[in-house]
Amino acid sequence: MIAMPQTTVTLASGHKAPLVGFGLWKVPLETCADTVYNAIKTGYRLFDGAYDYQNEKEAGDGIRKAIEDGLVKREDVFITTKLWNNYHSREHALQMAKAQNEAWGLGYIDLFLIHFPCALEYIEPEKRRYPAWWMDDAGTVSPAKVPIRETWEALETLVDEGIARSIGVSNFQAQLLYDMLTYVRHPISSLQIEHHPYLVQSELIQMAQENGIVVTAYSSFGPQSFRELPPTFSQRSKGIELLFDEGTVKGVAEKHGVTPAQVLLRWATQRNICVIPKSNSPNRLQQNLDVVGFDLAPEEIEAISKLDKGLRFNDPGHYLPNYPLRIFA
Amino acid sequence: MIAMPQTTVTLASGHKAPLVGFGLWKVPLETCADTVYNAIKTGYRLFDGAYDYQNEKEAGDGIRKAIEDGLVKREDVFITTKLWNNYHSREHALQMAKAQNEAWGLGYIDLFLIHFPCALEYIEPEKRRYPAWWMDDAGTVSPAKVPIRETWEALETLVDEGIARSIGVSNFQAQLLYDMLTYVRHPISSLQIEHHPYLVQSELIQMAQENGIVVTAYSSFGPQSFRELPPTFSQRSKGIELLFDEGTVKGVAEKHGVTPAQVLLRWATQRNICVIPKSNSPNRLQQNLDVVGFDLAPEEIEAISKLDKGLRFNDPGHYLPNYPLRIFA
Repeated sequence: MIAMPQTTVTLASGHKAPLVGFGLWKVPLETCADTVYNAIKTGYRLFDGAYDYQNEKEAGDGIRKAIEDGLVKREDVFITTKLWNNYHSREHALQMAKAQNEAWGLGYIDLFLIHFPCALEYIEPEKRRYPAWWMDDAGTVSPAKVPIRETWEALETLVDEGIARSIGVSNFQAQLLYDMLTYVRHPISSLQIEHHPYLVQSELIQMAQENGIVVTAYSSFGPQSFRELPPTFSQRSKGIELLFDEGTVKGVAEKHGVTPAQVLLRWATQRNICVIPKSNSPNRLQQNLDVVGFDLAPEEIEAISKLDKGLRFNDPGHYLPNYPLRIFA
Repeated sequence: MIAMPQTTVTLASGHKAPLVGFGLWKVPLETCADTVYNAIKTGYRLFDGAYDYQNEKEAGDGIRKAIEDGLVKREDVFITTKLWNNYHSREHALQMAKAQNEAWGLGYIDLFLIHFPCALEYIEPEKRRYPAWWMDDAGTVSPAKVPIRETWEALETLVDEGIARSIGVSNFQAQLLYDMLTYVRHPISSLQIEHHPYLVQSELIQMAQENGIVVTAYSSFGPQSFRELPPTFSQRSKGIELLFDEGTVKGVAEKHGVTPAQVLLRWATQRNICVIPKSNSPNRLQQNLDVVGFDLAPEEIEAISKLDKGLRFNDPGHYLPNYPLRIFA
C-alpha cells in the first residue's frame, strides 16, 4: 500500500501552505517575473521572498501575469515574505509590510516573517540595494533597542488588518521561541531555518514541531548556494564536498532512480518540513517539485542525517567582521 | 616579567567579584555550614548557590559563623544565588528572592541570577526537595506563560530595593541575551554557563564578553560531576573519558607542575571566565583556589579548546523524558 504523498501543511493560523515552494533569493531582477511565471506553469504555488532579496515587485509581476492569463487564481498561490532587520520598530514594521504588500500587488501576504532575530538602526529604504543592509554605507553595523516583542506585536497587527494571513520567524532558536510562546496573541505559524545534511538541527526542529510551528528549510542543498557569493560569505563553503556529490546522498538517489537534489528535498519533506529550492533550469525546476512521490526508508533518512557537521553557511557571526552578530551562539 | 594574576573581575553593575569561587551544588545539608566555613578559612570569598541546591540557609550559617569568628567581614564575601523556574512571575520572583535573602541571612545578595530561561507553573515551596522541581510530584512539566522580561524586571526591582547588588542569568544563549539587551534598565552583570573542554561555546562567550557580561563557568571538570547522578542525568557522561585523565590536559598539567583540575580552571580564568569548583577534600580545595598563579601558553589553551565535542551534560532537553525543554536547540 502506498500512502498518498502529503503536498500541503496546515499552519497554526489555520491556513494551508504548499510543502514545496520556489525560493526567490538571488533570482535576478531582469528575469524574475518570467522565472516566477514559468515556475507557476511548472506547478509551483508557493513563492518565498524577502525585502532583502529586492525582487518582490518583479515576483509579484510574474504572479499577476499568471493570474491574468488564467493559469492560477490568487487563492491558489501562497506568498511568503520577510521583514528586514532595519525595520523592527512597530512604526517601521507596519510601514514596510504595507510597502512590501504593495510591491507584490496581490492584495495580501500569505506569510510574513521576521527575517532575523536582530534589530538594527533604521536605514531609509530609498534606493534599491541587494542584498539589503547589515552594514550602512560606512560599513557600520548598528544594533537598535527594539525588543522582538514589539516587532511581533506589529506583525500581529498586520494579521488583524488583513495584510498578512499568517506570521512567523526565520533564523530563531529555541530560547527566543519559548519566550515568544509566553506572549503571542496570534500563533507563530512558521519557522524558517537553514537545514541540510551538514546542519541538521534536529532538536530545534523537534521543539518547533512540538509547539505547532511548521518548519521551512532554506539552503536545502547546503554549500551549493554559497559558493558563488563574495569571499566573506562563501568562505565556509569552500573545500566542502557538495551534497550532490556526497556518497550517501548519491547512493540513495541511485537506489530510488531520482536525483541527489530530489533526495535532499525529500529528506526534509518526508519529515513535514517545507522546502523552497530555486533553479534556473526548467528541467530541475520540474524535478525539485516532484519530491513527494517517493519515500525514503527510515534508515536512509537517518544515514543522511548522520552527515551532520553543525556547519552553518548563513551566519552573520562569521561574515560581519567589524561587528559580528553572534545570533547562533 | 610575570604579570600579576587577576583575582577579581568588575561586573557591569560596578561591583567586583572574585574570579574563583566555591560552588554549592550537591554540597550535603549536614556538612554544608562546616564546608563553607572551612572554604573561607582556605581563602574562598565567592559562594555560588541556588534555590535549587536547597542549602542556602546552611551556607549562610557557615558564612555568618566565619564573620562572627572574625575570619572575614560581610563585604569581603560575595554571594551568588539563583531564582528557580517555578517562580518567574513578578510576584513569585520578588517573594522568593526575599525568602532566599532571609535564608542566607547576610543582609543582601551580591548576584542574583535567573537559573534557566524557562518559566514553569508555580509549585508551593513549602517542603524541601532537592533538587527543586522540573516536574511536579505527578511527573508533569508545566510551562507557564511568563515572559523573561517580566522576570528580569522583577530582578531590577530587587536591585532598586537593595536586596540584590548585581543581577544576571544562567543557561541563556545569544538570541535571548540580544533581546534582553534591548530593554534592560540594570545591566546583565553575569552569564553562568556549562563550560569545559568538551563544551567550549566560544562564540557565546565572545558574545557575552563583547557586551560587558562576565561569564562564569560551571561544571569546569566536565563529566566528573554528572557521573554520580541518577541514570537520566548521568547518561551522557557514561563512557566519556574524564578530563582529569585526558592526554592533552594531563600533558599540560605535568609541564606546569600542577594538577589537571588546576589546568582546567586556569584554562577558563585566563580568559576572564570565573570558575566555581567544589571539593570535599581540603587539599583539592586549596589547589582549586590556586589557579591564577601560573599562565598557560596560548597554544596550550588552544589545544585544550580543541577537545570540544559540543557535549552538554546539563540539558533538560535530554533528561526530562515526558516534556523535553529543548532550551539549547
